[in-house]
Amino acid sequence: MKRYSLGIDYGTNSCRSLLIDLDNGAEVGSTVFNYPSGEMGILLDEKNPHVARQNPQDYLDGLEAVTRGALQQAREKVPGFDAAQVVGIGIDTTGSTPIPVNKEGTPLGLLPEFKNNLNAMVWLWKDHTGYAEAAEITKLAHEMRPNIIAKCGGIYSSEWWWSKILRLRRADPAVFAAAYSFVEHCDWIPAVLTGNTDPLTLKRGVCSAGHKAMYSAEWGGLPDKEFLAKLDPALADLRDRLYEVAHTADVKAGDLCAEWAQRLGLKAGIAVSVGAFDAHMGAVGAGIKEGTLVKILGTSTCDLMIAPTSKPLADVPGVCGIVNGSVLPGYYGIEAGQSAVGDIFLWFVNHLVPDSYGASVGEKFVNMEKAMAGQKPGATGLLALDWNNGNRTILVDVRLTGLLLGQTLHTEAHEIYRAYIEATAFGALTIIKRVEEYGVKVEEVINTGGLSIKNATLMQCYADIIGKPMKVSQSEQTCALGAAIFGAAAAGAGEVGALQAKVTATREKVYYPIPENQAVYAELYALYRTLHDAFGTAEWSGKINHVMKDLLDIRARQS
Amino acid sequence: MKRYSLGIDYGTNSCRSLLIDLDNGAEVGSTVFNYPSGEMGILLDEKNPHVARQNPQDYLDGLEAVTRGALQQAREKVPGFDAAQVVGIGIDTTGSTPIPVNKEGTPLGLLPEFKNNLNAMVWLWKDHTGYAEAAEITKLAHEMRPNIIAKCGGIYSSEWWWSKILRLRRADPAVFAAAYSFVEHCDWIPAVLTGNTDPLTLKRGVCSAGHKAMYSAEWGGLPDKEFLAKLDPALADLRDRLYEVAHTADVKAGDLCAEWAQRLGLKAGIAVSVGAFDAHMGAVGAGIKEGTLVKILGTSTCDLMIAPTSKPLADVPGVCGIVNGSVLPGYYGIEAGQSAVGDIFLWFVNHLVPDSYGASVGEKFVNMEKAMAGQKPGATGLLALDWNNGNRTILVDVRLTGLLLGQTLHTEAHEIYRAYIEATAFGALTIIKRVEEYGVKVEEVINTGGLSIKNATLMQCYADIIGKPMKVSQSEQTCALGAAIFGAAAAGAGEVGALQAKVTATREKVYYPIPENQAVYAELYALYRTLHDAFGTAEWSGKINHVMKDLLDIRARQS
Repeated sequence: MKRYSLGIDYGTNSCRSLLIDLDNGAEVGSTVFNYPSGEMGILLDEKNPHVARQNPQDYLDGLEAVTRGALQQAREKVPGFDAAQVVGIGIDTTGSTPIPVNKEGTPLGLLPEFKNNLNAMVWLWKDHTGYAEAAEITKLAHEMRPNIIAKCGGIYSSEWWWSKILRLRRADPAVFAAAYSFVEHCDWIPAVLTGNTDPLTLKRGVCSAGHKAMYSAEWGGLPDKEFLAKLDPALADLRDRLYEVAHTADVKAGDLCAEWAQRLGLKAGIAVSVGAFDAHMGAVGAGIKEGTLVKILGTSTCDLMIAPTSKPLADVPGVCGIVNGSVLPGYYGIEAGQSAVGDIFLWFVNHLVPDSYGASVGEKFVNMEKAMAGQKPGATGLLALDWNNGNRTILVDVRLTGLLLGQTLHTEAHEIYRAYIEATAFGALTIIKRVEEYGVKVEEVINTGGLSIKNATLMQCYADIIGKPMKVSQSEQTCALGAAIFGAAAAGAGEVGALQAKVTATREKVYYPIPENQAVYAELYALYRTLHDAFGTAEWSGKINHVMKDLLDIRARQS
Repeated sequence: MKRYSLGIDYGTNSCRSLLIDLDNGAEVGSTVFNYPSGEMGILLDEKNPHVARQNPQDYLDGLEAVTRGALQQAREKVPGFDAAQVVGIGIDTTGSTPIPVNKEGTPLGLLPEFKNNLNAMVWLWKDHTGYAEAAEITKLAHEMRPNIIAKCGGIYSSEWWWSKILRLRRADPAVFAAAYSFVEHCDWIPAVLTGNTDPLTLKRGVCSAGHKAMYSAEWGGLPDKEFLAKLDPALADLRDRLYEVAHTADVKAGDLCAEWAQRLGLKAGIAVSVGAFDAHMGAVGAGIKEGTLVKILGTSTCDLMIAPTSKPLADVPGVCGIVNGSVLPGYYGIEAGQSAVGDIFLWFVNHLVPDSYGASVGEKFVNMEKAMAGQKPGATGLLALDWNNGNRTILVDVRLTGLLLGQTLHTEAHEIYRAYIEATAFGALTIIKRVEEYGVKVEEVINTGGLSIKNATLMQCYADIIGKPMKVSQSEQTCALGAAIFGAAAAGAGEVGALQAKVTATREKVYYPIPENQAVYAELYALYRTLHDAFGTAEWSGKINHVMKDLLDIRARQS
């Protein structure tokens, strides 16, 4: 009998479903739901640009819409398809996206008394209101718990769990007091589906806990009360209303409850797996294994690698996090990333590319790629740093900015675009060199995301600069595919590795490094590293590494 | 009785006349002649981008056309005007623009046997075919005659006299052999007008001789034969057929000959002054005096200052040249400059400014200036180096390139334009700081050229950054005006200084530094100097100053 699994992927502006055939990975249904609230699903505060919240109702409405949509497509597409053949559901979301909930696990934002209070809503990953709290947590952790902060690359981010909760405590004590507990978006959806939203017993995922909440079995779960109390005694109290243990995503969160089975049109009792973040599940859907780096190429990138827990793994300075089980059970998940990739290209095309390249953004990209096709590496004479949005890995410094060098009076827009593509590849190589220095070998790269499919120029450039084969994931929905894999694993349909082998694939076209290009790029990379180290590292203190930060200070005063 | 003087200004693509009333500087006639030969007057070689030659016939045709045009305008405009009231003619040209001539002083390019040979034509200032010869001359001069090379800032340029002549000797020995002598464009026109083109007796100007041919009375005129023979024995021989003495531009080259009096419609016997370069005469036309820096703001800039010869003046490292009498008699002329100013803005607007700022280049500039009007200094967070075409002063290094730093994902085109304006101002300040260090005080700056009239944003920015009042020359034709002043001086109509007082002026609007802007720009200048020194000076050898040059080497290999 046919078996299917359903993955639900919650993105920043929409959620989407993917229903797959577990025999072969065939994608038999997939629909998208755009969050209706706010601006493209985000609740903004015009007085504070750091605010980014979401309405939890959008998640529930989306869940129903995309599930029913996928089932309907499958019925139209696959003769004999029956929703009863769906054996499991997996969930991935953005994060850290904490939701303040009451004792029953109901989001405060769904309660009438809080429905007009942004602070009671979901705190989306890109909410940066807790930037001061993040700095405070970083400082305290370095003083009190250096082993904990070392696992998140030495810097705790304003995008993460404790920064947001501490910010809420200070900005709106009434909402904080009304919140019995907090639940990550990726944990709350499985809880809803299983009918158990009790904050004390719902199953939490190790991916979000480990990467964003400083959870590790190594030090007994979440950070200890002594540490939390130093930030605020209320956080120490809250710890008792959170969790002791977090789970890998192959674990079953529970069975689909009758109410939601009916709402979704699925069979009650099928498995719902523990939730995790989109990138981590995307890596699984792309076919991550030891020796493979999965690069999720979007506006920014997320780079994921794994290393077996059977061998010791050093802290790798500058990576975003190393968490046991955050990608696959039995492996450390190693997360790194670049703060801006596609965003740099979009910024450039929107602000600095004249209409002579085309009327639309799409035409401009295509014509710039055509124009650069004849140029050999190094022929532009340009070199850029990929820091227009700071540097996430390996420098972990948001106060870095862009640099472009080598312009003449003849430099053209497509040459600068090429320099930015190269810069992002040099940034990617820098990440790989760092993890390899610490013993994590990268044999190949599997790319996913729109750029990897649409931009052959970029992919070849990445192969030449990184010096490894660049593969491209077959599915365009690797996150939802990963979620579906975990849903199936939780249903007992197979081990995650075996399921990956069945349902994931890479495309026929593989980009291999071209040796003569590699040689030139090796020279250019040495120059990139000179600029990278000069402007980005403490080695150049008192020489030139202050320039970007001084400019930011002056800008802040003069804006 | 009314007296008038005529200035003729030979530019790169055209020549123009200016007829002025010597009582008050009123501009009573001015016309332009576009050189008909080649591309916009320049003879190119599609096989060699360094070639830039001109047809001497264009100069003669232009001379007649612009003189007759100016006289006609004056007759229409001034009741009772009579061409016999014109008392003198002055000439300025580009340079070094040497012309190979025969024994009679006729350009080889005018002879039927050479008319299809580019090497027999005029070698325009921007011809760079002699780049290897320039390097050879620089090297030899440092070894044999360090005192001589010190006066041209330590580097002999491919744009200059000996580089071009040595190049011709090697590239086309037949043309070299046919050339009895060589005459600068600025010396040849007065020679033609006076009817004496004999290379051995026509009066040569000290401006071109001193700035481009390493002439100085200090070492007995042109470089000695021993030095020239080391470059090529033929150059040592040539020295005998050049000149022993060169003159300031207030000296009379001779009287206007009957033939040219008739061709131009002027009275025979009026004074023709010794020729000089456009920038130097432009400085005079702008009202240069001790303590004034005249900045000719165009695609590049030329900065001119003077210092009295009665006091000792040290060699100023990095300036283009220090020549006794090259601007005004009795003063050292000090020439400095920036390789690209307007050219950077034009490159930017043509290649990197989207049509959202306007359909035409003019609209784009206007709208970018409007957009930046509300922003305070430093608010862009950007910093640029003005090296897209190398750095002429104070680094004297053509192998430097552009740099832009501080870009984010929100940086807009008008902010980058502002950063480039600021960068050119920082470059200008660096020149002023250098000459002041060596004892040449700058009290005010008089700007000339289209940018100074059209771009108030730029002028205010220059005042704030340079920290001195920015004045703007009244005349839009300061080069031709300076030439007319020298024509009048040669005619005995007054000393140059007295004539300047009568016929030159600055505009009412003066841009004064705004103290709060100055304070911020002082901080930004310190950062500019860090980048300037890091990428441009030997102090940073082995650290980062190799990056631009390595990129150029790679580009040369890969192009």
